[in-house]
Amino acid sequence: MCTSISFGEREDKKSVEEKAVFAPKFDENGLIPCVAMDSVTKEPLMLAYMNEESLKMTLKLGEVVYYSRSRQEIWHKGATSGHTQKVVEIRTDCDQDAVIVYVDQQGAGACHTGRNSCFYRKVDLEAGSAPTALAFTEDLTFDPDSVYKK
Amino acid sequence: MCTSISFGEREDKKSVEEKAVFAPKFDENGLIPCVAMDSVTKEPLMLAYMNEESLKMTLKLGEVVYYSRSRQEIWHKGATSGHTQKVVEIRTDCDQDAVIVYVDQQGAGACHTGRNSCFYRKVDLEAGSAPTALAFTEDLTFDPDSVYKK
Repeated sequence: MCTSISFGEREDKKSVEEKAVFAPKFDENGLIPCVAMDSVTKEPLMLAYMNEESLKMTLKLGEVVYYSRSRQEIWHKGATSGHTQKVVEIRTDCDQDAVIVYVDQQGAGACHTGRNSCFYRKVDLEAGSAPTALAFTEDLTFDPDSVYKK
Repeated sequence: MCTSISFGEREDKKSVEEKAVFAPKFDENGLIPCVAMDSVTKEPLMLAYMNEESLKMTLKLGEVVYYSRSRQEIWHKGATSGHTQKVVEIRTDCDQDAVIVYVDQQGAGACHTGRNSCFYRKVDLEAGSAPTALAFTEDLTFDPDSVYKK
């Protein structure tokens, strides 16, 4: 546990919105959504979740630590793959129930599929097909089987 | 309802990740997180949620429609303020449980506090204060009381 880092109390709406105190809101499952963005390209890399402990670990380590909902455990991103995310800047929104982390992405990418970003497909707005089609915007940048030792 | 737009079936993990079919996953509350980003500056504007109906309305209208968790209703962003968000591109992630919408933000901004972006504060990583401090990164761009007719 990171006992040295603390968050503010969530007071009234105006205080949460206008004070210079970090008072993040965790949802009914104790989680807050976090979007990791590449600090250089400003491209989104992934959206995952943090709990209070992983957010404090992120602040303490300077590397992004999520909470894995599927594995139900603290998830230090890149601990096994080497694809860590060095924290450059952390932003929160008006009601402080979301965070964005600008990172220096280490290694070839953030996505377990072998791509730089998890957001490698866009909705094909022109196609008009049913069901709605996606178009790929990114190629593989690494071999996930070798990186993740599957 | 938007009956003409449909989504794909969520089959196995590999299909969700590698097929060119939009098969968004809505959580136990029927919601999917959506990050709106400025299509020109690539700055994040807000993070909110969509349900299936609002996502289909977004695709049909070409303007972003969220689902308001607090009001528990469909929320056509900008319908009252005029600050609509014209859809430029919609991306989804590997497991299709999040979307990013690049938008052409109309009016002076996206945030109800009177700022362009809801992400107007960053964590002050240098301060080392307890509780953790925030620093403002953006000034007011409009008067929310007049825009939202409070």
